[in-house]
Amino acid sequence: MINVEHIGIAVKELAAAEKLFSALLNAQPYKQEIIESEHVATSFFKINQTKIELLEATSEDSVIARYIEKKGEGFHHVAFEVEDINAEMERLQNEGFTLLSAEPKPGADNKLVCFLHPKSTNGILIELCQEIR
Amino acid sequence: MINVEHIGIAVKELAAAEKLFSALLNAQPYKQEIIESEHVATSFFKINQTKIELLEATSEDSVIARYIEKKGEGFHHVAFEVEDINAEMERLQNEGFTLLSAEPKPGADNKLVCFLHPKSTNGILIELCQEIR
Repeated sequence: MINVEHIGIAVKELAAAEKLFSALLNAQPYKQEIIESEHVATSFFKINQTKIELLEATSEDSVIARYIEKKGEGFHHVAFEVEDINAEMERLQNEGFTLLSAEPKPGADNKLVCFLHPKSTNGILIELCQEIR
Repeated sequence: MINVEHIGIAVKELAAAEKLFSALLNAQPYKQEIIESEHVATSFFKINQTKIELLEATSEDSVIARYIEKKGEGFHHVAFEVEDINAEMERLQNEGFTLLSAEPKPGADNKLVCFLHPKSTNGILIELCQEIR
């Protein structure tokens, strides 16, 4: 793990949340991106070397819609940047962590990503991500 | 906000969580600290410029004990480092955010801290912190 790449926050309405986080962080979002495969619309802020990723569901099938229904708005996941996602996935599997996919998948922000099951990580949904070069 | 200073994670047993996060992060905790006033024992990891702070309750009166009882183990708060905590508190109050204390308080890791009420921040407990110089 070489950096806390971003913190993902589940929100009901992206536009309202962008306004709130702009005031909170005293910064403007620098990018919006829709991830069709995940039914999610995102907006990114950057504070030093860590991003804040706001996540809004674009359909009721979205994991974000289900998350908000169950737990309400708020913290969703933390993403750690890794040098080599395949090597890190193998290392973590050997350590007994549960990966949510057998292979890295394309994610937002030009990344390959893999999530770890929160049951194996003290209740925290953790994403590994590697920049696609 | 100049940095995501740390992410606070509520855990039931610090020793077990240290072991788990050592394996997860592939790093060792570099500091333990007890904050008597908050009835909390902490352990810190550092990933680049952001710390992971594990928080265990040392008594049933601890906010961490109440948090785990209500929500279970997991994400507790995110702390943003600021240059001038008094100025930032004033700015955020003027923006309509709810501060949980009128003045900065001494926190872990040689910091002055102030929390924002999660009802004003999309459900996320946010800490402002400034290094005591």
